[in-house]
Amino acid sequence: MKKYGFGVDIGGTSCKIGLFETTGRLVEKWEIPTDTREGGKNILPNIAKSLQNKMSERGIAERELEGIGVGLPGPVRMDGIVPVCVNLGWKNMDVSKELGSLMHGILVEAGNDANVAALGEMWQGGGKGCENVVMVTLGTGVGGGIIVNGKIVSGSNGAGGEIGHMTVDSQEKVFCNCGRKGCLEQYASATGIARLARERLALEHEKSLLDQAGKVSAKTVFDTYKEGDAVAGEIVDQFARILGTALSNIACVADPEVFVIGGGVSKAGKPLLDAVEKYYRKAAFSPCADTRFTLAALGNDAGMYGCMKLILN
Amino acid sequence: MKKYGFGVDIGGTSCKIGLFETTGRLVEKWEIPTDTREGGKNILPNIAKSLQNKMSERGIAERELEGIGVGLPGPVRMDGIVPVCVNLGWKNMDVSKELGSLMHGILVEAGNDANVAALGEMWQGGGKGCENVVMVTLGTGVGGGIIVNGKIVSGSNGAGGEIGHMTVDSQEKVFCNCGRKGCLEQYASATGIARLARERLALEHEKSLLDQAGKVSAKTVFDTYKEGDAVAGEIVDQFARILGTALSNIACVADPEVFVIGGGVSKAGKPLLDAVEKYYRKAAFSPCADTRFTLAALGNDAGMYGCMKLILN
Repeated sequence: MKKYGFGVDIGGTSCKIGLFETTGRLVEKWEIPTDTREGGKNILPNIAKSLQNKMSERGIAERELEGIGVGLPGPVRMDGIVPVCVNLGWKNMDVSKELGSLMHGILVEAGNDANVAALGEMWQGGGKGCENVVMVTLGTGVGGGIIVNGKIVSGSNGAGGEIGHMTVDSQEKVFCNCGRKGCLEQYASATGIARLARERLALEHEKSLLDQAGKVSAKTVFDTYKEGDAVAGEIVDQFARILGTALSNIACVADPEVFVIGGGVSKAGKPLLDAVEKYYRKAAFSPCADTRFTLAALGNDAGMYGCMKLILN
Repeated sequence: MKKYGFGVDIGGTSCKIGLFETTGRLVEKWEIPTDTREGGKNILPNIAKSLQNKMSERGIAERELEGIGVGLPGPVRMDGIVPVCVNLGWKNMDVSKELGSLMHGILVEAGNDANVAALGEMWQGGGKGCENVVMVTLGTGVGGGIIVNGKIVSGSNGAGGEIGHMTVDSQEKVFCNCGRKGCLEQYASATGIARLARERLALEHEKSLLDQAGKVSAKTVFDTYKEGDAVAGEIVDQFARILGTALSNIACVADPEVFVIGGGVSKAGKPLLDAVEKYYRKAAFSPCADTRFTLAALGNDAGMYGCMKLILN
């Protein structure tokens, strides 16, 4: 194993780059803007330039580099091709080949951003010490990443771990962004929780701190929940029942050692975890009823860590 | 790779044993009774004797043997221990160690029977040519096996692929054998389909061939469905909607190349497959909407094949 590697987590506005030792130590991290103009054709050349600058700045030779792991906001097929990545403007992009050739043949591995975040949390975050992890990212949407025996389950269509689009309510009337109805994301994301709150507050209810909260968000729901607000408690209960039950179904498929909960909504912390765990344990098949829950530990760096881990697998 | 291996699928009443070439060719198969008396302590010695007899009968030397794969009707932990196997009377059995020592140190690998059946179907059956397979066994219960990158997802508690216990209806009033309510198995197994039929026939309904069928079973439901019976059609629709939706949720986790449908109920053949596919495609997240469906091809030999494949991985 050589001494260094890069983890590059490409987002729609910026790329987070980490220089790592292959032991897992983060040496330095920085960001560059993502140039999505002209079908995103400058993204990989810009990254290559930034990596080469860093190498000459630190006097790192190519022969000291194990490889480069890349995460991106779209599906990556098992053959490494990105069929389409709307946020970057890419179509049929072979990241390994393109960036590899810009970097004189150095090994490049690519993965979906939610999946590499899961891998990062398994390696150096909330799932450290485990090889079988399900990560759940509660953000604007609901993302997921499934790690089995230390490897990402990317799926034959790049849809492995797309747990936000499990159908949890076939009676739902409102459409999900994906064009279907009743997806987990419609209830367990930040926008989903805000919707549950608006729906609850539109019905008759006792006096609630949420009535004074102005624009109701997932954050205001959890903040008032922590203050003991009964209506917020009902909303959190509904969210937790839906998410806990969905996770119990995932356990019947992948049976992980631990569920790692991340994303902006997870900043609500232990009270959120406790609520979801309660409904999970109620719904779970008995052999998996004791599966551990933990909060993600690497925040926005999880993807960068996971990218680095990609090239060590 | 050596020339031969054995696949041993241990059931509650008999063990199905196959002598294979490591190319995948089945040389010979036979059965011996499973002696479950005295905590099942004779099961592995009896198997060892049978294998040794076969080897001397055919003049196969130990050095020609790659290993022995074993399937059994219970959970196998990732460390290879069988914590409890009710049908065999075992507790904390280390199959690899016990059978390995009876066979003079030959490699022994063990797996859960539903999981090895999935591996067998991937290797030489309905999923041949694929590395990412979900097998669904519709029998008295509903079993499953998840294969990712050619390997079984056994899960941290041995519950990987226990898809029969996914919760599909949290409003269900009747208990599942597992002690919970609303499991997939309660609607999609042979007994589940018979229950759906009895419930439907207890309500007002137009004249149906099922009224004359005597005891209603999954078989009579599908037989009359094939004759165009409208009430049977409604029952099959309900079964297919529930199973198809559950499989669409599994696709959001494991995203397989193919769903292989086996077990006694699958003898209903293509009409069953067509009905389940229809609802799957309706419910599926768009990247996985075209996933292939196929019938299992190895019947009761799937487990034996999968056992053999265990030692080749």
